[in-house]
Amino acid sequence: MALNKDRRIGKHAILLLLSDDPNEYLGVIEQLNWKSCTGKVGSMDSQKVVAAIETAAKKNGVINSDIYRESHALYHAIIEALNGITRGQVQIGSVLRTVGLSFAVLRGNPYDDEREGDWVAVSLYGTIGAPVRGSEHETIGLGINHI
Amino acid sequence: MALNKDRRIGKHAILLLLSDDPNEYLGVIEQLNWKSCTGKVGSMDSQKVVAAIETAAKKNGVINSDIYRESHALYHAIIEALNGITRGQVQIGSVLRTVGLSFAVLRGNPYDDEREGDWVAVSLYGTIGAPVRGSEHETIGLGINHI
Amino acid sequence: MALNKDRRIGKHAILLLLSDDPNEYLGVIEQLNWKSCTGKVGSMDSQKVVAAIETAAKKNGVINSDIYRESHALYHAIIEALNGITRGQVQIGSVLRTVGLSFAVLRGNPYDDEREGDWVAVSLYGTIGAPVRGSEHETIGLGINHI
Amino acid sequence: MALNKDRRIGKHAILLLLSDDPNEYLGVIEQLNWKSCTGKVGSMDSQKVVAAIETAAKKNGVINSDIYRESHALYHAIIEALNGITRGQVQIGSVLRTVGLSFAVLRGNPYDDEREGDWVAVSLYGTIGAPVRGSEHETIGLGINHI
Amino acid sequence: MALNKDRRIGKHAILLLLSDDPNEYLGVIEQLNWKSCTGKVGSMDSQKVVAAIETAAKKNGVINSDIYRESHALYHAIIEALNGITRGQVQIGSVLRTVGLSFAVLRGNPYDDEREGDWVAVSLYGTIGAPVRGSEHETIGLGINHI
Amino acid sequence: MALNKDRRIGKHAILLLLSDDPNEYLGVIEQLNWKSCTGKVGSMDSQKVVAAIETAAKKNGVINSDIYRESHALYHAIIEALNGITRGQVQIGSVLRTVGLSFAVLRGNPYDDEREGDWVAVSLYGTIGAPVRGSEHETIGLGINHI
Repeated sequence: MALNKDRRIGKHAILLLLSDDPNEYLGVIEQLNWKSCTGKVGSMDSQKVVAAIETAAKKNGVINSDIYRESHALYHAIIEALNGITRGQVQIGSVLRTVGLSFAVLRGNPYDDEREGDWVAVSLYGTIGAPVRGSEHETIGLGINHI
Repeated sequence: MALNKDRRIGKHAILLLLSDDPNEYLGVIEQLNWKSCTGKVGSMDSQKVVAAIETAAKKNGVINSDIYRESHALYHAIIEALNGITRGQVQIGSVLRTVGLSFAVLRGNPYDDEREGDWVAVSLYGTIGAPVRGSEHETIGLGINHI
Repeated sequence: MALNKDRRIGKHAILLLLSDDPNEYLGVIEQLNWKSCTGKVGSMDSQKVVAAIETAAKKNGVINSDIYRESHALYHAIIEALNGITRGQVQIGSVLRTVGLSFAVLRGNPYDDEREGDWVAVSLYGTIGAPVRGSEHETIGLGINHI
Repeated sequence: MALNKDRRIGKHAILLLLSDDPNEYLGVIEQLNWKSCTGKVGSMDSQKVVAAIETAAKKNGVINSDIYRESHALYHAIIEALNGITRGQVQIGSVLRTVGLSFAVLRGNPYDDEREGDWVAVSLYGTIGAPVRGSEHETIGLGINHI
Repeated sequence: MALNKDRRIGKHAILLLLSDDPNEYLGVIEQLNWKSCTGKVGSMDSQKVVAAIETAAKKNGVINSDIYRESHALYHAIIEALNGITRGQVQIGSVLRTVGLSFAVLRGNPYDDEREGDWVAVSLYGTIGAPVRGSEHETIGLGINHI
Repeated sequence: MALNKDRRIGKHAILLLLSDDPNEYLGVIEQLNWKSCTGKVGSMDSQKVVAAIETAAKKNGVINSDIYRESHALYHAIIEALNGITRGQVQIGSVLRTVGLSFAVLRGNPYDDEREGDWVAVSLYGTIGAPVRGSEHETIGLGINHI
């Protein structure tokens, strides 16, 4: 069941966001035959953050929107990633914060054993802070789920 | 008050953990004249994770252990990082999970304005899962606080 | 102080929702001389779920709306039941979920000892999921409080 | 993607615990060709509750313990069910409570669409309260996950 | 249902802890014909904090330990007060903190309307911090429940 | 690092709210050469509570709004104080509650050691309850942070 060193899906999902050259990094991920998408979302509305990631993942075929188990897997990975972003309460505007985030969604098998099937990783990186320019610091989140 | 592009303390703290050559990456951080330390901790006991990071930061002079405000700043950054790791309840063994983590603590000013003074970033990366080899997936956390 | 086997208020509140014939099951509850009400609510708005249950309980005389201690007891039972429904954060629409719930509120003494007085049980059963038909799974919640 | 009326896995998991004749009810579940197990656990130690359910599900072949994705699915369903039991913090003994619980784990496809595959439901029913006989009330929890 | 200005039970419970002369302040409370007790507890173990308050309230007749509804009311007031103390997770030692607290428990009717009956207020005041002398700051908590 | 008995910032912040004569009590605080402000806010909207306190603190020069680290320190102190007010989820209107609060913000060094620098205390006292007059009880919260 061991994690495969070259297929650490969480690490890849984070590095894709932090890379100086995301397009080059996408090449690394394509070699793994994984599905992926990236995007950006800025909002005080946590609902919109969830929606932006779900929409991107469906549009880009990372998950199959006809099958609920795939949406369900993605949803929980998103909420887990948001826990890292918000660190305590999964709330943004309701506690007068705003976020500006890049996100990535990867899908593939990070384990040596083929029976482990596909997993999904949602990574988020950006800033969180007061709705005043510059009044913000960085924040990161990662959610991983079997799909 | 804007974040300085080259001094994004959270990004550096994460990349230091994910880098293929951490020693080389430490060179990047030294050029910023920032203080830093890294370490590893594996435990089911959340208390031990907090203690390992605090001890490393004090021993390596990242924070001054004689001044409570510095310990206080670090403590909250650690707990925030643990929220990303545990995604919901800051609990490990009490819900039958175990973690194997690398950590980094960076201290410096990520803003253009000198008056922003020092900030601390705590990054955590590793695995979380059942106390059975291989029954685990990756996890990441980042906490940032003014010091 | 022991719970009376025939007057397990939580079990009755749940079975009333899951029964194939709720009207018949209401007969069981009436024999206990307990007050009760049932209803349905579907919403993305957690506020509306709380309001629907409170309104039904007041209209049907399950609690006396002139006495705050009764509203207070009911309120906390509702929030506890919502914890079972939402499993982590008492949020629905703000994390892009919607619920379709049946609810029941029972009031009576589930203990052998008369001095235990009245207790209130709030049960919730239905579905939670994305605001897309079929993208949902079941969910249940139970809150119990002295009144 | 609609939920199948006769295969509501959460409802079956709860009714199996609340049934006057669990053996008879198991017959209903066997007709669905679902896997299942039941058990009991009483403890102040949340770790032991998680372990008891995991062990029962593995021993009875409800999940395949060689495949981590199955353990991962079960684990999150257990923690979600514990949210209903504890209603706020997934803690038992650390806040001086004790539980006496029956549990059931069901595995099957509750949807009309075969592509939805297997899902797991963990139901918990029993009492929670002070570690003093009779100082307790009922509690219920349900967690559902794709497997 | 209005709160009576002179019988604000939460305010009295806090002032009793913060008063320079608690004995004198107890006189104020005795004039209201309310039951009360005070005590101190220092621990890393959240369980011991709960137990110390429960034991004091029972020994001093603030609640009747033969009736579970009274213990239940007190228990939830204690946990609510601990939320103010811990501000996020009701955990102390498991996140490497220790507390040194004074507590008070008051019982009486803070409302104009006699039908509101007895309520209980639990107040906590003291310090929280690292298990190192001086590495701590103040903390306060208040829980109020109908009894 | 010990807390100075006469400069307990949390105690002063609370007593300022509970004092029969706040103006007189402000005299005590002025003698310490601390900055302070007080105000009132009533809302179902948690965002407005945060904003009211931030605005008052900035307008009255308790924090310097040009420096993000000061806003950051205040923000976390506010959220910690709201944990005491809401006791579980930092939510107000979304769970159909409303608050009527007095608040105080104090800034000064509560420690013997000058190197501890400035700390901020946010205290909140008032009522929480249903949006129906009289259906409410008292609530208190305190957040303390280094600035």
